[in-house]
Amino acid sequence: MAGESNIRRLSVRGFRAGGIASGIKKGGRKDLALIVSDSPSSVAGVFTSNRVKAAPVLFDIKRAGKGVSRGVIINSGNANACTGEKGFRDAKAMAKAAEGALGLKDGSLLVASTGVIGVPLPIEKITSSILRLSQRLSPSGWMDAAEAIRTTDAFAKAAVKKKRIGGRDVTLLGIAKGAGMICPDMATMLAFFATDAVMDSATLKDALSNAVRLSFNRITVDNGTSTNDTVLIFANGLCGGQPIRAGGQGFAAFSELLTELSLKLSHMVVRDGEGATRFIAVEVRGAVSEGEAKAAARKIAGSLLVKTAFFGGDPNWGRIMAALGSSGIKMREGSVEIYLNRVRVVEDGMDTGMEKAAARAIKKRDVTVEVDLKLGSHIYKLWTTDLSYDYVRINSSYRS
Amino acid sequence: MAGESNIRRLSVRGFRAGGIASGIKKGGRKDLALIVSDSPSSVAGVFTSNRVKAAPVLFDIKRAGKGVSRGVIINSGNANACTGEKGFRDAKAMAKAAEGALGLKDGSLLVASTGVIGVPLPIEKITSSILRLSQRLSPSGWMDAAEAIRTTDAFAKAAVKKKRIGGRDVTLLGIAKGAGMICPDMATMLAFFATDAVMDSATLKDALSNAVRLSFNRITVDNGTSTNDTVLIFANGLCGGQPIRAGGQGFAAFSELLTELSLKLSHMVVRDGEGATRFIAVEVRGAVSEGEAKAAARKIAGSLLVKTAFFGGDPNWGRIMAALGSSGIKMREGSVEIYLNRVRVVEDGMDTGMEKAAARAIKKRDVTVEVDLKLGSHIYKLWTTDLSYDYVRINSSYRS
Repeated sequence: MAGESNIRRLSVRGFRAGGIASGIKKGGRKDLALIVSDSPSSVAGVFTSNRVKAAPVLFDIKRAGKGVSRGVIINSGNANACTGEKGFRDAKAMAKAAEGALGLKDGSLLVASTGVIGVPLPIEKITSSILRLSQRLSPSGWMDAAEAIRTTDAFAKAAVKKKRIGGRDVTLLGIAKGAGMICPDMATMLAFFATDAVMDSATLKDALSNAVRLSFNRITVDNGTSTNDTVLIFANGLCGGQPIRAGGQGFAAFSELLTELSLKLSHMVVRDGEGATRFIAVEVRGAVSEGEAKAAARKIAGSLLVKTAFFGGDPNWGRIMAALGSSGIKMREGSVEIYLNRVRVVEDGMDTGMEKAAARAIKKRDVTVEVDLKLGSHIYKLWTTDLSYDYVRINSSYRS
Repeated sequence: MAGESNIRRLSVRGFRAGGIASGIKKGGRKDLALIVSDSPSSVAGVFTSNRVKAAPVLFDIKRAGKGVSRGVIINSGNANACTGEKGFRDAKAMAKAAEGALGLKDGSLLVASTGVIGVPLPIEKITSSILRLSQRLSPSGWMDAAEAIRTTDAFAKAAVKKKRIGGRDVTLLGIAKGAGMICPDMATMLAFFATDAVMDSATLKDALSNAVRLSFNRITVDNGTSTNDTVLIFANGLCGGQPIRAGGQGFAAFSELLTELSLKLSHMVVRDGEGATRFIAVEVRGAVSEGEAKAAARKIAGSLLVKTAFFGGDPNWGRIMAALGSSGIKMREGSVEIYLNRVRVVEDGMDTGMEKAAARAIKKRDVTVEVDLKLGSHIYKLWTTDLSYDYVRINSSYRS
């Protein structure tokens, strides 16, 4: 699906990637990925807000702090979370084995894991596969890497964009995984970006934090926040020219590029939401502050009653009003307007009699919910899914 | 199911109740209930925290403030919420028609509605049925009233208890409805209590607030808060003796009685949770404050991932750890213990290898989740359901 159209051009100069099956997942599915920069890259990361952080997250927070890295090794099928001291030793062993196979010095690589929580990582499967993986790396190996980081994802997620910045063609490439445990702050997922832009780690971190705030932190599938969320960006500087610095014109252009690609990948995560049959954009406007607009939008997007109504194709705006009222924000019931795919179903807080038209309008994969509070000028937008039988099926089947 | 065993004794001296079909609901199902005290009763109410309050809620908040009432008329099948000025006129008309039929003076009765939001109340169906309903009232008519306030409830909920207080036999009877849109603060539901205790309105309100905090505010099915939640209690004083006063010994005894009955009814609401196959008690202990224990318990009970795992019979404690970590409370991952139906699945934050035993232990209708943070001495307990296909089915089918 999305991202596939870009496979041909999925590369950034100076980076190689790959993915293979190491035996962590059953059925010969790919589960081990490696992304390597041929030269030292600036690096920045954003990590889960969950107080229970997986070993690889704690490992990366420390190691990414150095600002320079050569890449990351990632496994799926096991989160290496709640695994105690062994978990930390395994995260380190995983990095060390990959560094050895690539002839890199100790401390060069980051680590990420995703999958089931609380099961010790089968580290020997990983270490015994790393040499084979290192030999399969290629500049066009990104789709294999995107495949190998999937868990319940129905499709691999990758995207690439080029942009003229400071007289140079900057390429930015990203891959991501995520389908369940998706919640703002931040979505349960992994995402990795590589660019040839010239940027130091601090500038990269600024751009990444901004992009994540506008994209990955605005998607929700099931209000869950995982123990393993990680977004990393590597910049090897190979496009040359003046460094992009915070506050400069180039920075704005790069931030825009990174935000666009983050939005693209984060929307792919929502479209691939476990069991999702609809892609729902929720926009609350006319709020007295952005915080209030955000609280209202999150309450609506998080409501099981709203999500199941959309699954059933029911323009049940009463549930949207109930969610709005329970969000704790300032509102005047009598001035609320609600639009479903542009059909006004509520005016002055009451039914407009347009329900049949709305029922027709929302029988689409893409649905927009617009709420106008008519109190102020602030706005907040986020993206979510409906809630279907398949979400229950996927998440109730015993782990195997 | 529950409550049915008490049918024979379901009465309180001086109160009459009844329920009939007025045609709001299809298929001749009961949808109009009336509870009347033969003499003026003290009254107290607790209402939804939703900012969008239905017309009958606003009506009752004002009228219950007088502290004296003769009863309440209730309809199901229509919430009379988001219905503008007509909604207020309808709530008033409903009370007035019932007052007329019973020969009561204006202002004697309260009103409650539950059902679909945003549809004008078919007030003529109600007013034309009230005379018939008033003729069907009887001291043993409570089960008919409990039937008539059902929406998606699978069974009617009623319970009665007697207790010796201040040398008198005090009877307390309650009926409730609720199955979906159930969330703490407060659960989406209606509940009505009648007692022959001698208490003024302020004392009654104290006892009610305390009981609601320990019961109805501690249950969650789907994190939704409705526009119509209402709990009312009427006390006609017919058991005689000294009035029960706040702070006295009788007050403690009455509070205990009311809390017990509230717990009983609120647990019935959870057992009848839409699509529920399990009744789950979540207890967090060893927290540094009750607020922190509460935040953690609510996050666990609200997690779709935890709820779907229990539906599947999967003792997936990793999802409980993830929920705990994202609740924002103080915790030391390495000291957490988790028990599922008394089987310790997590010790020192890690797997105990007892998963198979736990899987067997939770294959029951009743499941307890105990989390010990081992940081302090505070505790919080609440009750919830699993999340099944049937929840999605019930809430995605188009209203009809």
